[in-house]
Amino acid sequence: MATSRFFMPPSASTWNKSKVSLQRVNKTSYAIQKTVRFSVINCSLKINLHAQPALNGEIRVPSVIKEMENEDITSLSVAGRLVKAGLVFQQNVSVRSFEIDSEYKMSTKAIMNYLQEASLNYAKKLGLTIDTRFGITPGMRKMDLVWVFRGMHIEVDRYPCWGEVVQILHWACASGRTGVRFDWTINDINTGETLVRASCLAVMMNKNTRKTCKLPEEVKDEIKTYLSVDVEPIVEAFKFSCPQIEAMDHIKTGLTSGWNDLDVNYHVNNAKYLDWILESTPDSIRDRHELWKMNFEYRKECLKDDVIQSLSRVVPNNEKNRGIEVEHVLRLESGHQVLRARTVWRTNSHPCRGINSMKTIF
Amino acid sequence: MATSRFFMPPSASTWNKSKVSLQRVNKTSYAIQKTVRFSVINCSLKINLHAQPALNGEIRVPSVIKEMENEDITSLSVAGRLVKAGLVFQQNVSVRSFEIDSEYKMSTKAIMNYLQEASLNYAKKLGLTIDTRFGITPGMRKMDLVWVFRGMHIEVDRYPCWGEVVQILHWACASGRTGVRFDWTINDINTGETLVRASCLAVMMNKNTRKTCKLPEEVKDEIKTYLSVDVEPIVEAFKFSCPQIEAMDHIKTGLTSGWNDLDVNYHVNNAKYLDWILESTPDSIRDRHELWKMNFEYRKECLKDDVIQSLSRVVPNNEKNRGIEVEHVLRLESGHQVLRARTVWRTNSHPCRGINSMKTIF
Repeated sequence: MATSRFFMPPSASTWNKSKVSLQRVNKTSYAIQKTVRFSVINCSLKINLHAQPALNGEIRVPSVIKEMENEDITSLSVAGRLVKAGLVFQQNVSVRSFEIDSEYKMSTKAIMNYLQEASLNYAKKLGLTIDTRFGITPGMRKMDLVWVFRGMHIEVDRYPCWGEVVQILHWACASGRTGVRFDWTINDINTGETLVRASCLAVMMNKNTRKTCKLPEEVKDEIKTYLSVDVEPIVEAFKFSCPQIEAMDHIKTGLTSGWNDLDVNYHVNNAKYLDWILESTPDSIRDRHELWKMNFEYRKECLKDDVIQSLSRVVPNNEKNRGIEVEHVLRLESGHQVLRARTVWRTNSHPCRGINSMKTIF
Repeated sequence: MATSRFFMPPSASTWNKSKVSLQRVNKTSYAIQKTVRFSVINCSLKINLHAQPALNGEIRVPSVIKEMENEDITSLSVAGRLVKAGLVFQQNVSVRSFEIDSEYKMSTKAIMNYLQEASLNYAKKLGLTIDTRFGITPGMRKMDLVWVFRGMHIEVDRYPCWGEVVQILHWACASGRTGVRFDWTINDINTGETLVRASCLAVMMNKNTRKTCKLPEEVKDEIKTYLSVDVEPIVEAFKFSCPQIEAMDHIKTGLTSGWNDLDVNYHVNNAKYLDWILESTPDSIRDRHELWKMNFEYRKECLKDDVIQSLSRVVPNNEKNRGIEVEHVLRLESGHQVLRARTVWRTNSHPCRGINSMKTIF
């Protein structure tokens, strides 16, 4: 599992079933199949729901998102703001020059960082956390609990460009008995089109025993008002079998973290794992393709002096339009697995405005 | 020298001497000695000028900054804006959770990233760059020129905290015959107090020959209107002798860059050098102190597959209040030096609001 920096807590059967439900809305074709289009002030909010099943020509959309058609989502809420009575957090961010790749597109690592940032700011805005501490409620502090990631699923339709201002929407849902699911969309601020969808399961861990545990009633009570109920994930994990270690043919050893990769708990930030995955991804894929879908299964936290081995294997597949699938394992030199992942890559698709047309000159 | 991502060009005697000059203003004591306090709308702008000589109780301040007392510097100009007829660029940024250290304070690396970001956005706002390309004017493109850093000097009075919104002011000046000096301040958005001062010399490099060159007249003409003239650096380089390699007793070898450390030119971002410096800085200093002053002398660009050795040595000094001085060299395995630097460290001074008081609990 990936390390803490987290906030909104798990569910149980006692969750207050309120405020959010799924709605059926008419589907409007808009360039991409399975796109729902809403009119908002001066722009439109389009939610791509590739992962959501169509129901007789209709799509299920969280009503919290649907209702945002009446709000101005273009305002530059830098520090973020609560909408829908606190059930959704909105934050606008500008893509920085140090957060892009060689194509002037926002890096996947930067996207992961901003997902986490939105979650922490959400908790802070709700007043749930002690002081300004990372997602620690009073109940959690009493019991020495912190949040850890278990699984993260991300799909990128289009990578934002340098200087582009994008809008992050974020909400949290009860998920089974022990965890909370976080959902995010990153949207084009001008067109409202959804660029990135992400969904993540977070659970609680005792920071002394390093073991995960069921969500205590006290913590549950602290946060239940702000959890949406019965909302499906904005993106589903795609199924993949357990990676075959012995078949992995791209290996990079001796990977370590630097001081700037550590978070406030001296743990390696979850986005750093992506760096390590890339180190063993074949050059032919990394150089000519972009990350399209990612499933991360965090299995063990990682500390400063850990030495990591990164193993990858391209998964053979003959299906058209499915992209190139790569399976990955990160493990300690002792053999303990830190992360299992599967990534899907597609050919570099969309240039950042006007940049690629000049490629031959530079 | 550090790699490109740059923009505003060098000077010569033909620079249009206009628009900016030094002014003498009355000094008002305000908590820190040598602080100038201006009243602005709802806040005050205080420029700490430790590096500037006091002149009979007065201090020299660029008039571009002085005149900003009549402007609202608190507005959240996320994408940045031009002030003082384009002579100064202003951008406000919020410190992110992934840009802080274990004390919840903005990392020095993040500060360096934002300095660069402000420069690139300044060039873009001025319309000097081709398309949205990193600081490349039409004249530079014709001659295959890019900007490179030669020296960077930073002083931090207070590190901003997570979630804090700070204001970056940035301007550029002609500097000798071959370069341009960039200056920045990072200011507290509420009090106007200057938290960080930085000054950097940038020169042009031919990207085919990898050699620096004199600024061509054509490029000079493209940018001269936006260069301030006769303004002293906001922070001076402190003098240091050439590091004694053979005396260096803290060494870390085998350092490499990851894919996410590269910029659009596939060079290692200049802020990455700081990561490598920290790797050989003694734990006793890095863990209990914070970076106060930094002088970087970039000597050679660094590419993806370069393997770096980081060497450090604590410089003996008996002067009180001078901090702990450390000299650093980064070099390739071939022995070629990539960077020479001297850093000054002080005891961790200011807690981020309310965080440190809870340290014993966490």
